[in-house]
Amino acid sequence: MCQLLAMSCNSTSEITFSLKGFVQRGGRTAPHVDGWGIAFYERSGCRVFLDDQPAALSSLAQFVSSYPIKSKIVLAHVRQATQGEPMLSNCHPFQREWLGQSWTFANNGHLRNFHPHLSGAYLPIGVTDSEKAFCWILQELRTTFGDRQRPPTWEEMAPRIAELCEVAARHGNFNVLISNGEGMFVHCSTALHALERRHPFPTARLVDFDMQLDLSAFNSERDKVVIIATEPLTSEEPWSALATGESRLFVDGEMVWSHINAATRRFPAHTEHCGRGPLGLVEGVAA
Amino acid sequence: MCQLLAMSCNSTSEITFSLKGFVQRGGRTAPHVDGWGIAFYERSGCRVFLDDQPAALSSLAQFVSSYPIKSKIVLAHVRQATQGEPMLSNCHPFQREWLGQSWTFANNGHLRNFHPHLSGAYLPIGVTDSEKAFCWILQELRTTFGDRQRPPTWEEMAPRIAELCEVAARHGNFNVLISNGEGMFVHCSTALHALERRHPFPTARLVDFDMQLDLSAFNSERDKVVIIATEPLTSEEPWSALATGESRLFVDGEMVWSHINAATRRFPAHTEHCGRGPLGLVEGVAA
Repeated sequence: MCQLLAMSCNSTSEITFSLKGFVQRGGRTAPHVDGWGIAFYERSGCRVFLDDQPAALSSLAQFVSSYPIKSKIVLAHVRQATQGEPMLSNCHPFQREWLGQSWTFANNGHLRNFHPHLSGAYLPIGVTDSEKAFCWILQELRTTFGDRQRPPTWEEMAPRIAELCEVAARHGNFNVLISNGEGMFVHCSTALHALERRHPFPTARLVDFDMQLDLSAFNSERDKVVIIATEPLTSEEPWSALATGESRLFVDGEMVWSHINAATRRFPAHTEHCGRGPLGLVEGVAA
Repeated sequence: MCQLLAMSCNSTSEITFSLKGFVQRGGRTAPHVDGWGIAFYERSGCRVFLDDQPAALSSLAQFVSSYPIKSKIVLAHVRQATQGEPMLSNCHPFQREWLGQSWTFANNGHLRNFHPHLSGAYLPIGVTDSEKAFCWILQELRTTFGDRQRPPTWEEMAPRIAELCEVAARHGNFNVLISNGEGMFVHCSTALHALERRHPFPTARLVDFDMQLDLSAFNSERDKVVIIATEPLTSEEPWSALATGESRLFVDGEMVWSHINAATRRFPAHTEHCGRGPLGLVEGVAA
């Protein structure tokens, strides 16, 4: 299984503290050694850092987790492939443009017999079914909102993205982060945890790295931060597990929409991994 | 004016030496202080590093210019805006996917009254006319090769891209780098220089930084490298200037196609800059 990390805030924040713990899961505290990536939204811009090295050993990860990028939305991924070599084109987050916005997507899970028709609006560059699912979701959004000259509101998009995630989740576990820089949409099949941080901000202690931080020194009374992670990153904070089939939308550090599809089922854990098949074999390949 | 740098090789190489000189132009040896970016192609993958800080002072630039990424194609840009603040979404190279390949684009020049119809297949995220031109070029390629399921060959694409560059160049100076990871296409309005390096490899000396390197220690007899830059990066090497209206295609460190459109004209230098207008003002904005 891969691992996911995301942040949504009402004012720009640095994710360096959470990231210091998260990257340990890329080879040190967990076996996700097959690449990693992170997307930072900064105003209308988005920059994605990708690496096919284990995050815990990557000098790029070391640089990025010490580099104070101010962002309101961040999403990150460490990858564990069960077969085949790691390749940059299979590293998440994936990135595409739609209606003049940069969309990013990261996923863990494994989809079986998931062969949506891709018209060509978006096509995968690598060989993961994660990227295929992302291309399909954007293609379907393009179709649903085909008459738009400007991005639809998240109020319009969130229910449609949830429907699309539910369709994909019939083929396997599908834990997802997706963003356009304005909203952070998450969908849970098996494992996603959320943490809201508000005034008074606590001293937080990482579970993957011997480090604690007095968050009150870095946040004001008005700051609102939500952290999403596959497994809690800190001890002694009130992380809550998302339900199977649950979708949530976060804007400016607050949950503004949620929905649970009770029909979504968990697939057995042994089918859930983040591998990928040999080059060129797209079908049934995991991510 | 912004500055461009590109590399095409027949085996993966590091661009760290050239880059050490190039980034000096982002604030130290030249006044291009409004951001920078670089794209590295690695097999089917592509990673772009972007920064809105001056390249000469950017810790990300320092990291990347010391980080040995092996690549057959690299393109980079340092930006000088004459008005407005720098923003990540205006930094080159821009990146889009077409037919399962990652396309990147960097440009210097300034297009006036360039308002092509953009159907929505690709739309700008920032406000530069460079990104608008890139979206338009990809849109026109999509139209020209609309029946394809796989990327056309560069033999097919190069003449079409040259035509499109020539149309854009009627609106102003348009020096361009564009790649899909297989070919490196360049178009010159005013300033691009090319350098072929072959066995026997010389000792090269940067013009922007006190550094020389014995390239024979890093290259074998079979290696072929082409470096493209707005202005020569090294002294005592046979850089040659491209002609106004000249397009060239490089694959695996060799020029495989070229064309000169004699009708292309140079616009006065005072109209050529890399500024951009206020946020939201797309028309006539430079890059």
